[in-house]
Amino acid sequence: MDRAEPIYDLAHLAHVELLTPKLDESLRFFVDVMGMVESGRQGDSVYLRGWDDYEHHSLKLTASAKPGLGHYAFRTSSPQALQRRVAAIETTGWGKGWGDGDVGHGPAFRFTDPDGHNIEIYFETAWYTPPAELRPALKNQASRYPSRGVGLRRIDHINLLAADVRANRQFMQDYLGCRLTEQIIFDDGSEKGAWLTVCNKSYDVAISEDHYGARGRLHHITYAVDNREDVLRAADICLENNVFIESGPHKHAIQQTFFLYVYEPGGNRFEIATARARLILAPDWKPIV
Amino acid sequence: MDRAEPIYDLAHLAHVELLTPKLDESLRFFVDVMGMVESGRQGDSVYLRGWDDYEHHSLKLTASAKPGLGHYAFRTSSPQALQRRVAAIETTGWGKGWGDGDVGHGPAFRFTDPDGHNIEIYFETAWYTPPAELRPALKNQASRYPSRGVGLRRIDHINLLAADVRANRQFMQDYLGCRLTEQIIFDDGSEKGAWLTVCNKSYDVAISEDHYGARGRLHHITYAVDNREDVLRAADICLENNVFIESGPHKHAIQQTFFLYVYEPGGNRFEIATARARLILAPDWKPIV
Amino acid sequence: MDRAEPIYDLAHLAHVELLTPKLDESLRFFVDVMGMVESGRQGDSVYLRGWDDYEHHSLKLTASAKPGLGHYAFRTSSPQALQRRVAAIETTGWGKGWGDGDVGHGPAFRFTDPDGHNIEIYFETAWYTPPAELRPALKNQASRYPSRGVGLRRIDHINLLAADVRANRQFMQDYLGCRLTEQIIFDDGSEKGAWLTVCNKSYDVAISEDHYGARGRLHHITYAVDNREDVLRAADICLENNVFIESGPHKHAIQQTFFLYVYEPGGNRFEIATARARLILAPDWKPIV
Amino acid sequence: MDRAEPIYDLAHLAHVELLTPKLDESLRFFVDVMGMVESGRQGDSVYLRGWDDYEHHSLKLTASAKPGLGHYAFRTSSPQALQRRVAAIETTGWGKGWGDGDVGHGPAFRFTDPDGHNIEIYFETAWYTPPAELRPALKNQASRYPSRGVGLRRIDHINLLAADVRANRQFMQDYLGCRLTEQIIFDDGSEKGAWLTVCNKSYDVAISEDHYGARGRLHHITYAVDNREDVLRAADICLENNVFIESGPHKHAIQQTFFLYVYEPGGNRFEIATARARLILAPDWKPIV
Repeated sequence: MDRAEPIYDLAHLAHVELLTPKLDESLRFFVDVMGMVESGRQGDSVYLRGWDDYEHHSLKLTASAKPGLGHYAFRTSSPQALQRRVAAIETTGWGKGWGDGDVGHGPAFRFTDPDGHNIEIYFETAWYTPPAELRPALKNQASRYPSRGVGLRRIDHINLLAADVRANRQFMQDYLGCRLTEQIIFDDGSEKGAWLTVCNKSYDVAISEDHYGARGRLHHITYAVDNREDVLRAADICLENNVFIESGPHKHAIQQTFFLYVYEPGGNRFEIATARARLILAPDWKPIV
Repeated sequence: MDRAEPIYDLAHLAHVELLTPKLDESLRFFVDVMGMVESGRQGDSVYLRGWDDYEHHSLKLTASAKPGLGHYAFRTSSPQALQRRVAAIETTGWGKGWGDGDVGHGPAFRFTDPDGHNIEIYFETAWYTPPAELRPALKNQASRYPSRGVGLRRIDHINLLAADVRANRQFMQDYLGCRLTEQIIFDDGSEKGAWLTVCNKSYDVAISEDHYGARGRLHHITYAVDNREDVLRAADICLENNVFIESGPHKHAIQQTFFLYVYEPGGNRFEIATARARLILAPDWKPIV
Repeated sequence: MDRAEPIYDLAHLAHVELLTPKLDESLRFFVDVMGMVESGRQGDSVYLRGWDDYEHHSLKLTASAKPGLGHYAFRTSSPQALQRRVAAIETTGWGKGWGDGDVGHGPAFRFTDPDGHNIEIYFETAWYTPPAELRPALKNQASRYPSRGVGLRRIDHINLLAADVRANRQFMQDYLGCRLTEQIIFDDGSEKGAWLTVCNKSYDVAISEDHYGARGRLHHITYAVDNREDVLRAADICLENNVFIESGPHKHAIQQTFFLYVYEPGGNRFEIATARARLILAPDWKPIV
Repeated sequence: MDRAEPIYDLAHLAHVELLTPKLDESLRFFVDVMGMVESGRQGDSVYLRGWDDYEHHSLKLTASAKPGLGHYAFRTSSPQALQRRVAAIETTGWGKGWGDGDVGHGPAFRFTDPDGHNIEIYFETAWYTPPAELRPALKNQASRYPSRGVGLRRIDHINLLAADVRANRQFMQDYLGCRLTEQIIFDDGSEKGAWLTVCNKSYDVAISEDHYGARGRLHHITYAVDNREDVLRAADICLENNVFIESGPHKHAIQQTFFLYVYEPGGNRFEIATARARLILAPDWKPIV
């Protein structure tokens, strides 16, 4: 009875700030081709959301000299949970202190993982209230299903590159309470990849080894659509819109995600995927190696 | 900061015991038409599972004079969580004490809800180990995807009838930590239906008003398939196999589930459904009324 | 060896002229919600097409005091086939003479069926040439797949009401060379419905009994989408756009079409359907009764 | 008005005889994994069909020392059409005379194409009459939809290798009345591939250049399923059954078929594909080059 209990302090991956040297083109890609909705602007940033993201935004596009990750954020499951995670992170020395919040959410604690990716956690949030023309027919839906472009439903996960996969993975498990669902370990014991979840999705965060040993880099971010047919349709739409398709539609053997990798005009890899009805329900899931 | 935190003690709906006056026919329905796999037999019971259910079984068919619900069970998220829930339930007077467990899982605490449905909670479980012919090609899958019949993936939810929806709903929230996601309230304030979750599914348990005021009755149980196309295919298969189709394929406005209602030969209503990529990720989801 | 050979003189259903008392609203429905493309205007008419219709248009919307059918047209398989059909029709007394053609096609012979529907047949046609922004990525596609609205692929069939189903059906078989694939005959021998094809689709024209005994009326027209999932998605889109959904998505037992019936704003019933991979390949198909 | 009319004498691709050195294993593949139905046996051959093939069989598996093509056959659109084609073929010197027919069809005229593939054409056929356990719920379906394996619907097309693509293609057009829908022509004018149809499918026969200059060889045969989702499901089933997957699921740029290439145990390449709602309706389709 003395085994450690699972930690449920982080509720879900909340949003990602993506840097782009071509803000206008990136915006057109996400709105016209991906079917996202703009929910706000401030400074050099534009806020976007999928049609069933319940928060103000799940994607923040920020003008920048180079593409890459600005930061990404988790929402916690309660104010108390937020305090517990802050206390834990502060013991590591990776904490950077509190920010005043951003458009759409309240005070956020800022820190980095060992590889240097900027992360924020917060609890207070602004539920999205659609304007009349985006009000859904069904009350249990965050906004109207758009019949424009791919029609991304919600943010799904983020895939990070890290020079030291093991160190980053252990930080996520020990201090954030992420649960490891799959990993790649070579015969020599080196860790090449890790997939971690904070909810019933099979992963919210993936970590892949950065072959160049660089720090703080992004592999891709992923939005969910409903069916495999939606991923195939996304490929058709990307083909018709001259979007560069890197790979797919295929099925990942790892996590069984059915996916399409493309590049948005700013130079970031972007994934459209569906996990189908797959959920990790076991509280003591044994990581697949 | 003094608001109550969400309770994450129950991990997921684990299994349902269904009573059937026609055990052989029910078994043929679930194996041949629904594509489930038999994982054990004991006494008057046969144990079955969907191809991606990770536990020994998610359905226990028990011979009985009449159809209906034997019991249903939740797995807890830890041994400690089990103890906490037992302590809470024992304060209500609905507790019935510990059982020695069943094929496939360890000691279970037994109790009823106010309406009289038999419920069990347990933590220790036997992960399913497929025999050679059912071993999957991918390591992250519980067993081989069957190419027989509908091919049910996993247990999804249970829908109960209750004379007093409100009393039952409050018991589930207060003592089990279920979170209310949707409900039907008439203008006179009477509660007609409630949908509750313990994980990121939009519901694990639904409660509908029993118009006859009877007690402990079942409305239906539901298994998940991956896509809406799978539900449509299920309807084709049921039609070809003389299965009585009560309703669907349709989309529920409530919870947006795309579903098919049929009757299994023993007289129990059975649902095949898909929630697509819909998850309830907000820890503070406001119930849709 | 003296059995009559099948007639292959009509190649396919080519277009339908729909009358609408609300031209602007009908146009917005077909362009914004259904995802069709406008290919021309003339007088009180607007010409539209599905993304894979190869001709200039498959739908002509004409302003009118009331909704209903203007005319519909078949393209013949050759100039010679056109002459043969004209000669056959002229023996019936239903011929109305040659017209000079319309936007998008050459000289057309005009006639009515016994019930009074206006029909045209022609061979010369203008293949659609998409402007740069609608040029497809693949050369074998008539125009770019739109990622707007339902995205209708091509015209599929027309369903007519007729006071005397038998007389109309026999006219279509004897003088146009249509092949009967299914029919509804009541026990008293009366014909209630007929489905006829001129190609490998299971029907290009359906005839249903007009219970009011009126003449020349339309039941609905139908466009094809690729998968059942597209029909389900169409229902979601119609729901979000306040389109009146009459019935579906369902599967017709007759012809097995998976369909959705809606009303366009002008008051005409409109169907979105998929026949999946079903084709009538047998040259001597025995009509299903 | 003196342009040649299209020829509609061949109704559709009817069946293929596949040679296999492992008859039992091939049979298990087609019945258990592909979900076909055995409809007869004679000598060293077993006859099989998809659930919506209307004839007695569409696949004849014959034991042989090596894999490859035995013969393939078209059904004509009438007895008169059969006589016309025989007369035309006899002028070429490729005719081999009449055979007495086979299980399931009447007298067939035998010939080869210039590359040496054995072809038969016939009109008289035995419509398939399902036994009680395979009787479909809907009258317009050839037999019950099987809920076993992939569930192939109907034969779709055959892809042949030929040393001289142009000569073979011209023979198919001039003497059989096939219509060319797409072709690959290199800058030096050499023909590398041709796709020909006799009905509204975008192709019944494809011809690819045989790099080895061999004669009479088969590239693959293809059966149709309804949706792209069925092709993806076929890939899952093949993976679980240790079927060698050569390529796919992907979309062919040519003809836009969504497909999966696998190898059956006898060594023949086999394709599962869907053309979705794509039909070639234009009687004067201009070949895509």
